[in-house]
Amino acid sequence: MNKPLVGIVMGSDSDLSVMKGAADMLDKFELPYEVIISSAHRVPERTAEYARSAKERGLKAIIAGAGMAAHLPGVIAALTSIPVIGVPIKSGALEGVDALYAIVQMPPGIPVATVGINGAKNAAILAAQIIGTSDEAVQQRLMQYKEEMAQSVEKKADKLNELGIEGYLNQK
Amino acid sequence: MNKPLVGIVMGSDSDLSVMKGAADMLDKFELPYEVIISSAHRVPERTAEYARSAKERGLKAIIAGAGMAAHLPGVIAALTSIPVIGVPIKSGALEGVDALYAIVQMPPGIPVATVGINGAKNAAILAAQIIGTSDEAVQQRLMQYKEEMAQSVEKKADKLNELGIEGYLNQK
Amino acid sequence: MNKPLVGIVMGSDSDLSVMKGAADMLDKFELPYEVIISSAHRVPERTAEYARSAKERGLKAIIAGAGMAAHLPGVIAALTSIPVIGVPIKSGALEGVDALYAIVQMPPGIPVATVGINGAKNAAILAAQIIGTSDEAVQQRLMQYKEEMAQSVEKKADKLNELGIEGYLNQK
Amino acid sequence: MNKPLVGIVMGSDSDLSVMKGAADMLDKFELPYEVIISSAHRVPERTAEYARSAKERGLKAIIAGAGMAAHLPGVIAALTSIPVIGVPIKSGALEGVDALYAIVQMPPGIPVATVGINGAKNAAILAAQIIGTSDEAVQQRLMQYKEEMAQSVEKKADKLNELGIEGYLNQK
Amino acid sequence: MNKPLVGIVMGSDSDLSVMKGAADMLDKFELPYEVIISSAHRVPERTAEYARSAKERGLKAIIAGAGMAAHLPGVIAALTSIPVIGVPIKSGALEGVDALYAIVQMPPGIPVATVGINGAKNAAILAAQIIGTSDEAVQQRLMQYKEEMAQSVEKKADKLNELGIEGYLNQK
Amino acid sequence: MNKPLVGIVMGSDSDLSVMKGAADMLDKFELPYEVIISSAHRVPERTAEYARSAKERGLKAIIAGAGMAAHLPGVIAALTSIPVIGVPIKSGALEGVDALYAIVQMPPGIPVATVGINGAKNAAILAAQIIGTSDEAVQQRLMQYKEEMAQSVEKKADKLNELGIEGYLNQK
Amino acid sequence: MNKPLVGIVMGSDSDLSVMKGAADMLDKFELPYEVIISSAHRVPERTAEYARSAKERGLKAIIAGAGMAAHLPGVIAALTSIPVIGVPIKSGALEGVDALYAIVQMPPGIPVATVGINGAKNAAILAAQIIGTSDEAVQQRLMQYKEEMAQSVEKKADKLNELGIEGYLNQK
Amino acid sequence: MNKPLVGIVMGSDSDLSVMKGAADMLDKFELPYEVIISSAHRVPERTAEYARSAKERGLKAIIAGAGMAAHLPGVIAALTSIPVIGVPIKSGALEGVDALYAIVQMPPGIPVATVGINGAKNAAILAAQIIGTSDEAVQQRLMQYKEEMAQSVEKKADKLNELGIEGYLNQK
Repeated sequence: MNKPLVGIVMGSDSDLSVMKGAADMLDKFELPYEVIISSAHRVPERTAEYARSAKERGLKAIIAGAGMAAHLPGVIAALTSIPVIGVPIKSGALEGVDALYAIVQMPPGIPVATVGINGAKNAAILAAQIIGTSDEAVQQRLMQYKEEMAQSVEKKADKLNELGIEGYLNQK
Repeated sequence: MNKPLVGIVMGSDSDLSVMKGAADMLDKFELPYEVIISSAHRVPERTAEYARSAKERGLKAIIAGAGMAAHLPGVIAALTSIPVIGVPIKSGALEGVDALYAIVQMPPGIPVATVGINGAKNAAILAAQIIGTSDEAVQQRLMQYKEEMAQSVEKKADKLNELGIEGYLNQK
Repeated sequence: MNKPLVGIVMGSDSDLSVMKGAADMLDKFELPYEVIISSAHRVPERTAEYARSAKERGLKAIIAGAGMAAHLPGVIAALTSIPVIGVPIKSGALEGVDALYAIVQMPPGIPVATVGINGAKNAAILAAQIIGTSDEAVQQRLMQYKEEMAQSVEKKADKLNELGIEGYLNQK
Repeated sequence: MNKPLVGIVMGSDSDLSVMKGAADMLDKFELPYEVIISSAHRVPERTAEYARSAKERGLKAIIAGAGMAAHLPGVIAALTSIPVIGVPIKSGALEGVDALYAIVQMPPGIPVATVGINGAKNAAILAAQIIGTSDEAVQQRLMQYKEEMAQSVEKKADKLNELGIEGYLNQK
Repeated sequence: MNKPLVGIVMGSDSDLSVMKGAADMLDKFELPYEVIISSAHRVPERTAEYARSAKERGLKAIIAGAGMAAHLPGVIAALTSIPVIGVPIKSGALEGVDALYAIVQMPPGIPVATVGINGAKNAAILAAQIIGTSDEAVQQRLMQYKEEMAQSVEKKADKLNELGIEGYLNQK
Repeated sequence: MNKPLVGIVMGSDSDLSVMKGAADMLDKFELPYEVIISSAHRVPERTAEYARSAKERGLKAIIAGAGMAAHLPGVIAALTSIPVIGVPIKSGALEGVDALYAIVQMPPGIPVATVGINGAKNAAILAAQIIGTSDEAVQQRLMQYKEEMAQSVEKKADKLNELGIEGYLNQK
Repeated sequence: MNKPLVGIVMGSDSDLSVMKGAADMLDKFELPYEVIISSAHRVPERTAEYARSAKERGLKAIIAGAGMAAHLPGVIAALTSIPVIGVPIKSGALEGVDALYAIVQMPPGIPVATVGINGAKNAAILAAQIIGTSDEAVQQRLMQYKEEMAQSVEKKADKLNELGIEGYLNQK
Repeated sequence: MNKPLVGIVMGSDSDLSVMKGAADMLDKFELPYEVIISSAHRVPERTAEYARSAKERGLKAIIAGAGMAAHLPGVIAALTSIPVIGVPIKSGALEGVDALYAIVQMPPGIPVATVGINGAKNAAILAAQIIGTSDEAVQQRLMQYKEEMAQSVEKKADKLNELGIEGYLNQK
């Protein structure tokens, strides 16, 4: 794989099945990435070192996923000037509302670009959009992806028209 | 002013005093921008046209602020492949929680990079970070801004040390 | 089927099993309808075209269901003057509260008639009530439906009286 | 005034200043209406009688506003087959979330067309849309109103363009 | 069974398995009761008649359970002066928070004595406490019940002491 | 004043202006009461003693108001078998939602009859209803109070009819 | 086992499987403890006696877990001056938010050191930290535990690096 | 002042007026402390250094206050083994609920002892309780403080008894 342009970081391996959605999407956009487990609380120095070195290692964006009192995206954002995209993970009794608030409500000066709860796939598209601001090929892939989504909706619409509600529900 | 790199869009002029925070911050980072009022609901075609033409007009990011059932950022994101940054505006009885949910919880395929409620300033920093991924001068300004923030905290810490709590609170 | 009077629109085929409740209810009231998949975000032009042409195609009401950052009902309401009924769909980590807020909290000027989360059946009754304001036959069916509901409750009340709690719970 | 087509009902005169927004909007659409104070809890028979007679008195829609444990819209909807539009009023410690839930979450069979918290103005537009389904003149006024809203946004957009942010904020 | 002192009312037979908890508890306190299905929305007149006649039929308290936009307890309380105890039922996407708000937040003048979500058992104890204010035998049973609860806790505490955590968890 | 039938207890004198609403209402129903400050946390023994002696001192109901982590009503209910009515007080950052949950969600076996946030007036009506189950004179006063409320609504309705919205709002 | 330094108290044996996490963690730190079932509402005197005697029996901290209207930690904190650590238990329709608010929002003067919902393990670590302020051996074990957590994260990070996402998810 | 035993840290000087409550309380308990401004996001290294050196500098507890996406307490707890007490500060549109969740919902392994929103005073009492586990003089002061609180409540209770509600409210 080429030198990674995007870092996917998560605080715990229990987040991996959600965060895989980001990796799959970056594969689709042909963007090289690295996947890292590094907790803001259990290995703070490692996490700090990762954040501080991100830019010089060539990363264009970091996608950080965390649940509960989710500090990982903000802690990374404090130590780098490349965009940090935060993915609140659904877990625990509050089911991700805690993580959403702990990520999106960053104080003035240190933004985290937050996506929806468990929105790892959207985080990857956002990373592609960021890279696409200076890479026309990636922009093209993004526009093509929009096209594909539209065609997929239209195909489903046609099928629903053809099969009716009962038929559509039964074919699935 | 140079050709704008960032579009600041809001649904209503009642959002202007909050969204000014984004403009001020972009001024600080010396990034040219345009400021637009264009509601997703009251002038949908105008908004759609704005979104569709954003890339070819040279915009690198769009900052969209809206309150209540805040559709503006998502509606723009549906029609462009450049990054859209959403600012939930505090207004109405739900005080911005409605806007936060209506912006951040976008479905798979169409991300909006969401910042905190009324977080226009952070939206601008995020736009600068996005532009900074391909513009070293902007990166430098971002790092310098981090430096200034740190110095400002340290200065306050020293003053608190010097004046004590009572003294500090009274000087303000 | 006759020319449709009601359009049932949803953003994704994952909403179909809920939205089927609206279709079933319109069948009961003998109101012709069409069922459409058309996302506000993935096929925005298609959705806009659908909304703009709704009135001239003879629709009296549109029922739009969507989950998460549910923009579909509001986006349609922006482009038509016939009543739009919004159905927040329960999905994702916030289980429909996000969709409820994103639909009901529309800004002044562009109402969406919102029903409860997953309330597709009620949306159809509301559509029938709207049509009933100028169609006495539909009004009659609505009053008869109220009658049937009352009889159903009374029948259950009688059965509970007859069987007692244990007996009633066991017969089910 | 002509025979009313819309009933505006509220549970308490403390809701009057909010509900006035509905009356003003109906004036704009030249729709005759009546304004009633009738609590679901303090004068239940009066409220029931009002609901039961609504249709025969020629009403096409009822707008019902209530705060806290807001039962008024649902109680009316139980007794009529014309559309009932519910307006949750912001009041008390929960600031209208209680009223929103108590209005929108109606059980299957008895819908209430709910608008946003304090959304009396939108309730009136919805009533006009309902009447407009069988009254072309009202439809025309609704389309003209959409036009006016669009022009108002465009005028503000032009003024912002002309004055800049500071200038715009200062003129207000 | 003797002439009922407590009415247990619910809006739907889907609430019966929860409301059975109230019946079981009243059995324990040897208090005669009746169990009724009567929706505030589907059979409003029947419900009103039930509430109006409650006192003269000798009821000392009414326990009313309802889910979602739970109007039943309040609608009954509007039409009687005997205490009405409301039980919010967990159902639908909001899982009973809607019912709690729709029951407890009654406007001044018409109280509903609200217990916790699905708290039918507690509602029955409360009814017994109300009857106990003028019936010493019921008071005695309530005090004995408190005694039994205390003994049950002490027995469990002793068993935990004896078996240890592992042993206690395994014996269950 | 006669021997008190109702105890009004609050955890802090900051709750007094809200709880006064209960005293005023009990005055109206000619029910003797006592008003006590006794915190569950700051004077736990005093509170326990108060609860334990309530019945033998002749109290028929206790109204307990508390804010934040409101334990007072539940702590009293643990030590008496007379009905305890809980009033969640709006205070602190959560504005009474914390107090509502801490009062209404009592575990099985120990109910608290909860009224709305700051609903001291309703708590007193509930106490009167409880006493009214064995005191016909109090029942009569409750029915008369219902009558007065109805007349007050009708009077306002008439005045609104007479003055119109503008006139009504201006006279206030 | 030695004389206990920590008391683990819970209101109900249904909390035992969660609270076991605290016991396991105290075992790890070699801290003697006792496990008690003692409800604030069902055996208030027993609970009070337990709290009052805690210090003289040598306890350094009490961990109290409770669900719903969780009064246990606060009731204990009212009667002792040793630190009380509250564990909100997830149970009932509100899934622990009620317990969290009922524990953390204690009024001024009576703190409860609150951990996350179902956070019994963290409660035990906190107890160890408290004891560690005067016991160097416990401090050493805490620092070693931090070390172990870090190594565990690093081991997982290495394994992810080695196996890739698919491989890692499949090995589990 | 003597060598500090408690560190009071806050992320911003806007938190100082709330956090002063902790300092005042520690003065009352005659516990030396230091007051520090050190943001987790704006001066992450400074904050890390502060946390890492806390124990060897003799601190027995750290009180950390922060608002919004409040990471400060957790970030400090990650780097020390002395107890960290978190104070969620009320600020921004979510009024401290975000800070509460971001502090209390820490993942397993890294507890933060959380007090109520703006509960700085309680944080200081908790710090005193922690120190009191190994310092009998502090324990004595804590018990005396409990005594004073009780006397203050009793004094108010007596005054209310003497003056009545009106009199009491007027004297204030």
